[in-house]
Amino acid sequence: MKIKVGVIGYGYWGPNIVRNFHTQPEMIVKAIADIDQGALKRAGQQYPDIKNFKDPKAVIESPDVDVVAVVTPVSTHYDLAKKALEAGKHIFVEKPFTATTAQADELIELAEKKKLQIMVDHTFLFTGAVRKMKELIAKKELGEILYFDSTRINLGLFQHDVNVIWDLAPHDFSIMDYVIDKKLKGVSAHGMAHVQKKIENVAYITLYAEEKEKFIAHFNINWLSPVKVRTMLIGGDKKMLIWDDLVADEKIKVYDRGVDIDSKEGVHKLLVAYRSGDAYIPKIEHTEALNLEMRHFFECLTGNKKPINDGLAGRRVVKLLECSEKSIRNQGKYIEI
Amino acid sequence: MKIKVGVIGYGYWGPNIVRNFHTQPEMIVKAIADIDQGALKRAGQQYPDIKNFKDPKAVIESPDVDVVAVVTPVSTHYDLAKKALEAGKHIFVEKPFTATTAQADELIELAEKKKLQIMVDHTFLFTGAVRKMKELIAKKELGEILYFDSTRINLGLFQHDVNVIWDLAPHDFSIMDYVIDKKLKGVSAHGMAHVQKKIENVAYITLYAEEKEKFIAHFNINWLSPVKVRTMLIGGDKKMLIWDDLVADEKIKVYDRGVDIDSKEGVHKLLVAYRSGDAYIPKIEHTEALNLEMRHFFECLTGNKKPINDGLAGRRVVKLLECSEKSIRNQGKYIEI
Amino acid sequence: MKIKVGVIGYGYWGPNIVRNFHTQPEMIVKAIADIDQGALKRAGQQYPDIKNFKDPKAVIESPDVDVVAVVTPVSTHYDLAKKALEAGKHIFVEKPFTATTAQADELIELAEKKKLQIMVDHTFLFTGAVRKMKELIAKKELGEILYFDSTRINLGLFQHDVNVIWDLAPHDFSIMDYVIDKKLKGVSAHGMAHVQKKIENVAYITLYAEEKEKFIAHFNINWLSPVKVRTMLIGGDKKMLIWDDLVADEKIKVYDRGVDIDSKEGVHKLLVAYRSGDAYIPKIEHTEALNLEMRHFFECLTGNKKPINDGLAGRRVVKLLECSEKSIRNQGKYIEI
Amino acid sequence: MKIKVGVIGYGYWGPNIVRNFHTQPEMIVKAIADIDQGALKRAGQQYPDIKNFKDPKAVIESPDVDVVAVVTPVSTHYDLAKKALEAGKHIFVEKPFTATTAQADELIELAEKKKLQIMVDHTFLFTGAVRKMKELIAKKELGEILYFDSTRINLGLFQHDVNVIWDLAPHDFSIMDYVIDKKLKGVSAHGMAHVQKKIENVAYITLYAEEKEKFIAHFNINWLSPVKVRTMLIGGDKKMLIWDDLVADEKIKVYDRGVDIDSKEGVHKLLVAYRSGDAYIPKIEHTEALNLEMRHFFECLTGNKKPINDGLAGRRVVKLLECSEKSIRNQGKYIEI
Repeated sequence: MKIKVGVIGYGYWGPNIVRNFHTQPEMIVKAIADIDQGALKRAGQQYPDIKNFKDPKAVIESPDVDVVAVVTPVSTHYDLAKKALEAGKHIFVEKPFTATTAQADELIELAEKKKLQIMVDHTFLFTGAVRKMKELIAKKELGEILYFDSTRINLGLFQHDVNVIWDLAPHDFSIMDYVIDKKLKGVSAHGMAHVQKKIENVAYITLYAEEKEKFIAHFNINWLSPVKVRTMLIGGDKKMLIWDDLVADEKIKVYDRGVDIDSKEGVHKLLVAYRSGDAYIPKIEHTEALNLEMRHFFECLTGNKKPINDGLAGRRVVKLLECSEKSIRNQGKYIEI
Repeated sequence: MKIKVGVIGYGYWGPNIVRNFHTQPEMIVKAIADIDQGALKRAGQQYPDIKNFKDPKAVIESPDVDVVAVVTPVSTHYDLAKKALEAGKHIFVEKPFTATTAQADELIELAEKKKLQIMVDHTFLFTGAVRKMKELIAKKELGEILYFDSTRINLGLFQHDVNVIWDLAPHDFSIMDYVIDKKLKGVSAHGMAHVQKKIENVAYITLYAEEKEKFIAHFNINWLSPVKVRTMLIGGDKKMLIWDDLVADEKIKVYDRGVDIDSKEGVHKLLVAYRSGDAYIPKIEHTEALNLEMRHFFECLTGNKKPINDGLAGRRVVKLLECSEKSIRNQGKYIEI
Repeated sequence: MKIKVGVIGYGYWGPNIVRNFHTQPEMIVKAIADIDQGALKRAGQQYPDIKNFKDPKAVIESPDVDVVAVVTPVSTHYDLAKKALEAGKHIFVEKPFTATTAQADELIELAEKKKLQIMVDHTFLFTGAVRKMKELIAKKELGEILYFDSTRINLGLFQHDVNVIWDLAPHDFSIMDYVIDKKLKGVSAHGMAHVQKKIENVAYITLYAEEKEKFIAHFNINWLSPVKVRTMLIGGDKKMLIWDDLVADEKIKVYDRGVDIDSKEGVHKLLVAYRSGDAYIPKIEHTEALNLEMRHFFECLTGNKKPINDGLAGRRVVKLLECSEKSIRNQGKYIEI
Repeated sequence: MKIKVGVIGYGYWGPNIVRNFHTQPEMIVKAIADIDQGALKRAGQQYPDIKNFKDPKAVIESPDVDVVAVVTPVSTHYDLAKKALEAGKHIFVEKPFTATTAQADELIELAEKKKLQIMVDHTFLFTGAVRKMKELIAKKELGEILYFDSTRINLGLFQHDVNVIWDLAPHDFSIMDYVIDKKLKGVSAHGMAHVQKKIENVAYITLYAEEKEKFIAHFNINWLSPVKVRTMLIGGDKKMLIWDDLVADEKIKVYDRGVDIDSKEGVHKLLVAYRSGDAYIPKIEHTEALNLEMRHFFECLTGNKKPINDGLAGRRVVKLLECSEKSIRNQGKYIEI
């Protein structure tokens, strides 16, 4: 018996979701909903066998659906996801999970009560590069992590409903949340809305961890950059790495450059020595992230285990987005998480 | 009659200062001072004709010196520069100008009173790349400037007396101060001292301008990066540019990518259209910046005009450093300039 | 009435050909043939409405087919294409056109006699980059072309039937043939078969033009390179350009660097001056090359004009391949074209 | 007692030779000769203690000179070097060693007879990158070497006396000669003189080894390239490396990409499998090559051992240049070495 999926939203990203669910050996898409007639028509032509509806309710309430995928604008996530859970369906929700932490809490509680699963579409976690970073950090190859520095800038489309933080930062927040294990305690965000009021198009976000963690994270996101940049620097006290997502090969480089602190010599002598040795370029698996994500969902649904990108992971990202927005509207005021 | 220069400090940077002053056709170095015997010996071997002294006073008070160049750690700038001005000498001071704004004010006032010149060694202003950026922005080729985004990171030597802000940001602050004409009003800085207490080795600084300016600047500086990066992005509403100081050629690229705001259509329609046209790589002059800087100093001394990097320019940079440090010690608190 | 296409060969490249013909508004794929049962099954699943056959004859002889696309190994091109022409069908043939020049001649003559069209799948001619190069050279922006220097290397799959020349050089030969207008007269090729006898995996090919052309072309192709490189340098006496096909943006850069020859001064004076001015990055259209190629084919079929990649273009490429192979087997002996 | 050096030629490269000999602890430059008065004047100002002469004979015959460094155009090497050897001096000769192999033979024989040393200035052999390549290849880390592919192109100054082969190829020939241990047997060279008759400005050179070596080398050199490229690819059957001399760090990358040949399966099955694993970036020592070369010369002179860049090494490079030129004048005719 295949797991039956209903997908709400067949705009830019929806077709990828449908295709990847549909090509899983043990899953099948049974219904698609979209309020746009053109989108429905495209779905019908591509998948004559899948029923399509204008009203999302038809998908949510269909007895022929086990999982509802919500691939709509963030403002509608809570409402659709809640109804799906109430109808006894597992949910797969586009990132960011919800528009507020309160909404996320409610959905998580509801799923808990109903023994249903939530997966938030943090696709990047399933790329070869992020999996490799997770592996390197988990086995302490970088040592203690000192900083996480991310840049995601390009000439982007302006969104009317959300600013650059809600558009781009979910990627980077979800990656950091996955690979780094630090207790965060505060956010400060700066930025500017050059074009549309309250729709910031450039933002700089700093995350503080608890003091003993000695960790800082920074995110540079920009819709108005003439060039496209997608890099992360992760500095550890043993090694450091850089991820450049835009090169075809050699996406990750690991540098044997750490800091040796030698305090025996007293304050007036140079306390820090650098190791600067060989670097290496680990082999990254070429897998389609979305496909891997759905396989993971299938395994969680059938094995009754939690996805790495479950509701709680989604909520942590929403919390960071929420705090960042609060800070950016207050000239970078420090906001406790 | 050549202008006679005395140089205090013959450590890492001093030899460059001596060589460049000495090779100006109308200038000549007459005296060098350094408290380190080894440095003095090197100076003596290289320049048998230039007198050298252990005591800076010997240089400052020498009747055979018109200009005193102070190429020592920042903590000593004020004292040496003040004595030189009191002795009636023009001064050339290594960046950052002084350790506090108050010191800068005092030196500027003293020079004013004594009709003496101050040049602060903001060498980068004399590179072909910065001169080209200044030219492009001054003639409005980029349109209104929306943001300035600078990254200067590498595996750097730790300094014991100053943090990464005082070490690296003077370069970027002085460049921004020179090429961008915006009224700044506040600073917020984040960072962390991973290795030595209060010696931050990573910092993220945001500058706010007056609201009507619609301008934001950001600086990413880091002594603990495995890779070296030196880039600036300057976004205008007409064009944007990127400067990469680490490539041999093609350091600056100008993109015909701006934002056209079309508000006629009402708020619900897409207001922004991107132009995405040709880019070009302007030719950059290959000149030695330091040599050009000294020629400029000579012209100012003889033509009685102010250097572009005069005491006031030096003071503006010190003010930004001071505010940044205050903010970084207060978890990014907004500090008014 | 739509133009009806039959496609022979549904292996690696065939599906792209089917998809692009099928999505042309005025064309439709009616039949697919492949000797491999698995390929036919995939075709059937993807296109339930298109008939599929094991025997290519069924496609060639179908009254429901106007154009036969031959997307099979080169050794079979001649035979299939000939039968298709004899059956009164226009042909679209994968590159390289044929295995010998004699075969190409025969097909061209046959098509001529039957008033049928031949298009050879030189896809690269329809990329934005090649079209831009053609445009720049045609309007003499580079001046007289002095050299053409191409590198196409990577870690490639070994083919059992053809060497690296027949595999990779058709791309580069067809591009050069299209953008450069020089009378070629000889070929010299060097290389080595490290792995399989007579299957050269690295080759260096030089093309000579008639002496008065003062033109030389060179091709570096390699299946055993650890890194992937795809660049062309085209040097003119006015300007020069470089094409890097592996970067996402900024594929072509045009340099205002030419040679000014000033012979007035006599042999003992420096005769050459370099201009070294601005460079620029022209905007390249992002279009799917294959789609554009098929549109061009449609226009030729209906407008009764010759494709830029007609049988003669295909034959010129085959001639160069043939001569190159002859030369490489004779230690680089000069072979007249 | 320091070894006393006399330097003939103080043009572009001479000052580097003087400086590096002069700063060796156990060597000292005693005399400089140049026919150009301006060069002599610069030498005198920089080194008041070193005698300078218009006539090279004064250096060659000076009893105060043990080693004569010949840093003049290649056409004069033989004559000056021969006189120096006859006068009982060791010689250090700029590359290329001589204008013909016959001249090289004569000098080698003369030095042998007189028990004098010859060093040819193949500076590149002493760079960290070439030393690292030598080390990796010597310890068989790359396995059997299959090919050597070098590109050295830029917008270069035209020389009036020599073509691009004699100007640029000595670098690459000397590097290949040092790191690769293959018996070469033939040369084929193609090129063109676009600007000055017989002064080729672009050349493509292929070297053949004895057949059992299964090795091929190729050199792309060009004075008329709009961009500067300095790369070498070395392919082995175990690993491959790329050297990019223009990047500041990470000059060499080693790829675990070789070819496994599995012939058990018969000719119709795929015979080749690629390993495509991690790559690494070995640490390269930052040393001044010229300084290291002179230290090596000192050690050879005092330890009575042959330099790695002795007369024979110089002769092998000249032989390749000679054969290349012969071939290029005959449209790439294969010339036996």
